[in-house]
Amino acid sequence: MRIVIRGVSVIRRPEEGVIPKADVVIEGRRYAAVVEGGGASGDFDRVIEGEGRLLVPGFVNAHTHLAMTLFRGLADDLPLMRWLEEKIWPAERKLTAEDVYWFSLLGLAEMIRSGTTAFIDMYFFMEEVAQAVEEAGLRALLSYGIIAPTEDRIEPELKKAEAFARAWDGKADGRIRAALSPHAPYTCGPEVWREAVKLARELKVPIHTHLAETKEEVERFRAQHGRSPAQWLEELGVFSVPVIAAHCVHLTEKDMEILAAHAASAVHCPTSNAKLACGIAPVTEMLASGVNVALGTDGAGSAGDLDMVEEMRLAALLAKLKTWDPEALPASEALALATCRGAQALGQGRELGTIEEGRRADGVLVALDRVHMCPGHNPLGDLVYAAHGADVVGVFVDGRPLFLDGELFTLDEEKVIAECRKRARRFR
Amino acid sequence: MRIVIRGVSVIRRPEEGVIPKADVVIEGRRYAAVVEGGGASGDFDRVIEGEGRLLVPGFVNAHTHLAMTLFRGLADDLPLMRWLEEKIWPAERKLTAEDVYWFSLLGLAEMIRSGTTAFIDMYFFMEEVAQAVEEAGLRALLSYGIIAPTEDRIEPELKKAEAFARAWDGKADGRIRAALSPHAPYTCGPEVWREAVKLARELKVPIHTHLAETKEEVERFRAQHGRSPAQWLEELGVFSVPVIAAHCVHLTEKDMEILAAHAASAVHCPTSNAKLACGIAPVTEMLASGVNVALGTDGAGSAGDLDMVEEMRLAALLAKLKTWDPEALPASEALALATCRGAQALGQGRELGTIEEGRRADGVLVALDRVHMCPGHNPLGDLVYAAHGADVVGVFVDGRPLFLDGELFTLDEEKVIAECRKRARRFR
Repeated sequence: MRIVIRGVSVIRRPEEGVIPKADVVIEGRRYAAVVEGGGASGDFDRVIEGEGRLLVPGFVNAHTHLAMTLFRGLADDLPLMRWLEEKIWPAERKLTAEDVYWFSLLGLAEMIRSGTTAFIDMYFFMEEVAQAVEEAGLRALLSYGIIAPTEDRIEPELKKAEAFARAWDGKADGRIRAALSPHAPYTCGPEVWREAVKLARELKVPIHTHLAETKEEVERFRAQHGRSPAQWLEELGVFSVPVIAAHCVHLTEKDMEILAAHAASAVHCPTSNAKLACGIAPVTEMLASGVNVALGTDGAGSAGDLDMVEEMRLAALLAKLKTWDPEALPASEALALATCRGAQALGQGRELGTIEEGRRADGVLVALDRVHMCPGHNPLGDLVYAAHGADVVGVFVDGRPLFLDGELFTLDEEKVIAECRKRARRFR
Repeated sequence: MRIVIRGVSVIRRPEEGVIPKADVVIEGRRYAAVVEGGGASGDFDRVIEGEGRLLVPGFVNAHTHLAMTLFRGLADDLPLMRWLEEKIWPAERKLTAEDVYWFSLLGLAEMIRSGTTAFIDMYFFMEEVAQAVEEAGLRALLSYGIIAPTEDRIEPELKKAEAFARAWDGKADGRIRAALSPHAPYTCGPEVWREAVKLARELKVPIHTHLAETKEEVERFRAQHGRSPAQWLEELGVFSVPVIAAHCVHLTEKDMEILAAHAASAVHCPTSNAKLACGIAPVTEMLASGVNVALGTDGAGSAGDLDMVEEMRLAALLAKLKTWDPEALPASEALALATCRGAQALGQGRELGTIEEGRRADGVLVALDRVHMCPGHNPLGDLVYAAHGADVVGVFVDGRPLFLDGELFTLDEEKVIAECRKRARRFR
């Protein structure tokens, strides 16, 4: 299969800015060429009109809980612990594997429509999540979230996590990768972490966890353990395997050095952290310390939606507020968080995240011909500061179109919406 | 003309939440009835399908500079003074009346598509702005922005402002109202303010100005005048007429008391204030002090776009971050800022801002049947935390449809985009 996108504006890498016009050639699952000025020759199985459109690397949503689309709007404007204890946890106890399957499909449709091509997810009933991902055609790093508040939960939880990872790592033509996910330092003891690290090393998979999301959680942890959660994890040897740490709102300089030294990735979730009043993660400081920072929405239950365009904008805006510096996290860096840095968090920084010959053909077409994108002095700035997820008009993963000109090719959206609405009633 | 919107979900007033199903009847320029459960009878000239849609009061963008759509993306990620001095002011010196007309049309198209039915604008070449508003069919409070850095500029500037107000107040079937706009306390001396107040009283129009946008500006003002800008304005008698004060990022408690005591409106512009790193306005505190707080985008040059849905979400998120309280500015209050409180800032709090019998029929239809709005536990929360401007599918002003199902009725969007792109080249 040879595809050409004709006459398209392209951002190959965020730091290079915009190539105003090019032909982009896809061969099989990979980009074959970016011909500046256009004029790519040869036979093509499919020609896609690129004029008036911007092609950017696919967005990587580096931290979410996909099936929590079920809880969108169920409990807005509440504190994290009340939100969890009074609303989310009781609702989750009613959740079935089938619910997770359908609300995963819903989240996948939402992600495709707003330009996400890969994501990192931790939840439960993960077999159903993986099945939905396989059908939808996205790329994902999936893991069962281990919560072991009591001794007797440790073994069964670890077994579940291991079974999922063994069954699904490398599946769906390699689009699905597995991780191991002790939920957080405050919900899993040292034994869970040590076992998870051992297993991660054996299976060659990363660890995806929550780190320093709220001030209270970190203070409580310090009072109990005499060190920060990041230091505690380091002492347990957790950073000897690749780590994806979601949130990282309340880190010390020392914590950032630990993450940087071990090439761990922090995942900034600005909407969720704002909505639950957790604070603003020190993104500029983390980047300056050499930490790889990726971007995520968190679950739609806390964030409201799964829109990475919005998340880029909020990341850029909050970085400026936090540092009192309007030059902080400029548009190109916000886009890097959502693309190449996300690919690095996935452990696929050399395969994904940019539009270059030989890389996997994951990409997003954004409409430039809309009123709110006019006059177009700076399409990269407009993408971050003016675009919506709804401006995404095309999405490719591994060279396969998942969405083009309003049509989703892998999912029956109407059926998914109808089924999800029906299932949602049980949770009100 | 009798219109019925059948089977629609309605938010009559933000604090009342959502009526799941109603028929909404419009007669001429006003709402005639909201029939809960549906079943409105009689003859209708037009029936609009409301199922799967949410009808909300029209959004009031209470502070913008419409024609600055020209500067969208021209100078992102810069500090306010460098942005103004190096980019915006030199560009504005090249601006013609015709440019302002075309970029006003562009901004109007963008506002209609994202649900804004009324706005408050201060700029120059205001005759052209007013002409564009008249054509587009929106409602607006318009004023010429007076900047008088030297003595000799005072009289000609005041004359321009007066001439515009006299010519346009009450025009376009009453949809256009005029204001007077000394630009800010730091750009206009006491004489300008005194004359403006005298004139405002004579013409029965409000004053629309910028107040306490940056920390530096307020500190400089205090050093020079020994009091805050708000106190200084009060001593000059400015608050004896209705005042719309944009930004209000850096107010003291005493300043808030002044605004509240005189029933002045503060306009929160969260995106612009974040993008230029000015800070987060104390919205929760202002509301608690009894200040009417409205919501605005500021110009697209600073904010990136004119999308009030996005502005509502950011207002809700930033209020939570500022107060460390996830219950701060819940969705219903954020919606109030964008609707009834905006109407109050306009001086039309009894005519606009809610969907009730006898009120002007300004309203917005939002699609509820999209993936990111599913499963729909709470359409009001979804509107604030999940919707985009692009989910707006219908807009009415004075009972007249300006936009429905993708079609703009008053503007030739393609022509406007083409003309604006051509004109924009001169400014690069």
